[in-house]
Amino acid sequence: MSPDIEALIQKISRLPGLGPRSARRIVIHLIRNREQSMEPILTGLKRVYERVGVCPVCSNIDTFTDMCSICSDKKRRRDIICVVENVADLWAIERTSCFSGQYHVLKGLLSSLDGRGPEFLKLDELHERCTNNNVTEIVIALSATVEGQTTDHYIKNFFRDKNIRTTSLAHGIPIGGELDYLDDGTLFAAFSARG
Amino acid sequence: MSPDIEALIQKISRLPGLGPRSARRIVIHLIRNREQSMEPILTGLKRVYERVGVCPVCSNIDTFTDMCSICSDKKRRRDIICVVENVADLWAIERTSCFSGQYHVLKGLLSSLDGRGPEFLKLDELHERCTNNNVTEIVIALSATVEGQTTDHYIKNFFRDKNIRTTSLAHGIPIGGELDYLDDGTLFAAFSARG
Repeated sequence: MSPDIEALIQKISRLPGLGPRSARRIVIHLIRNREQSMEPILTGLKRVYERVGVCPVCSNIDTFTDMCSICSDKKRRRDIICVVENVADLWAIERTSCFSGQYHVLKGLLSSLDGRGPEFLKLDELHERCTNNNVTEIVIALSATVEGQTTDHYIKNFFRDKNIRTTSLAHGIPIGGELDYLDDGTLFAAFSARG
Repeated sequence: MSPDIEALIQKISRLPGLGPRSARRIVIHLIRNREQSMEPILTGLKRVYERVGVCPVCSNIDTFTDMCSICSDKKRRRDIICVVENVADLWAIERTSCFSGQYHVLKGLLSSLDGRGPEFLKLDELHERCTNNNVTEIVIALSATVEGQTTDHYIKNFFRDKNIRTTSLAHGIPIGGELDYLDDGTLFAAFSARG
């Protein structure tokens, strides 16, 4: 096998969700479909490499300007910030159009197993942003997993005496979900938060 | 979401084995790991795009020269050609170092469902190559699936009256395989070909 191909397969196999076998399949597909697949992906990747970066304010990823399109949008509320784990979660929330404030993207959730401490939450930056923009509410929108809930508690505790309200997304029955297929934890949460 | 990112996600999601969700995950990973991941993949892809192509003789993929490294290797036998379905199969055979002849990579197996006829086998080219190089044996190394075996029969039939011996890989118990876990078809094939 040509060393160029081998090097590319190795690099692609390290992407999330891929392995040596799927990377090999992708590279063969790319070479066999030079014009329809490799060329557009190459130009698209080059474009993203040259033009896209991480927003210095909220850590969203977007085309390079001073700030991302959400942070620089004058029509969005500035007094409410939503904390999300990653950019995919941010995009998911944006797709529903249910939130029109600002975001704060974490570098990861707290995890002693994976060695992620409070510095991954960038809470001092978030606090400074809150003071500068008179933020009154922080919505913590993290997954309902152990790591997500630990991080949720840590953030709530951090802002307890700082005169900023912190809220979390509600737990309960998902829309369309049938009662007898629900797990005990969700059912318990739905009962506790009834209203 | 930035249109550049969206376009790249869409292109990557069309690669084999990927979908919109895994493509999104890959693109976020690439942007977040600009120097360690996006940059090396971009240069690797550019290198492959500029330097790698399909061999005009055997359809193997390799760095651009007149022929691929297998076809131009003077130490390899020229009187035996192995027919494989795709380049991944060729690489698998090369990894075992059990074959030192030439290859003929098909464009695909015969399949009436997917509309692939005999023109995908490029048998006239293969025959011409056989005559020019005094090839005495064609080893047909195709998968033991319905399409693979149909194609195997078609190639055998094509070369029947052309004074070239055609052989196929043996069917039987895989090395390390336990008898009572084997399917009936394999067991039957192993009994028929006992020796």
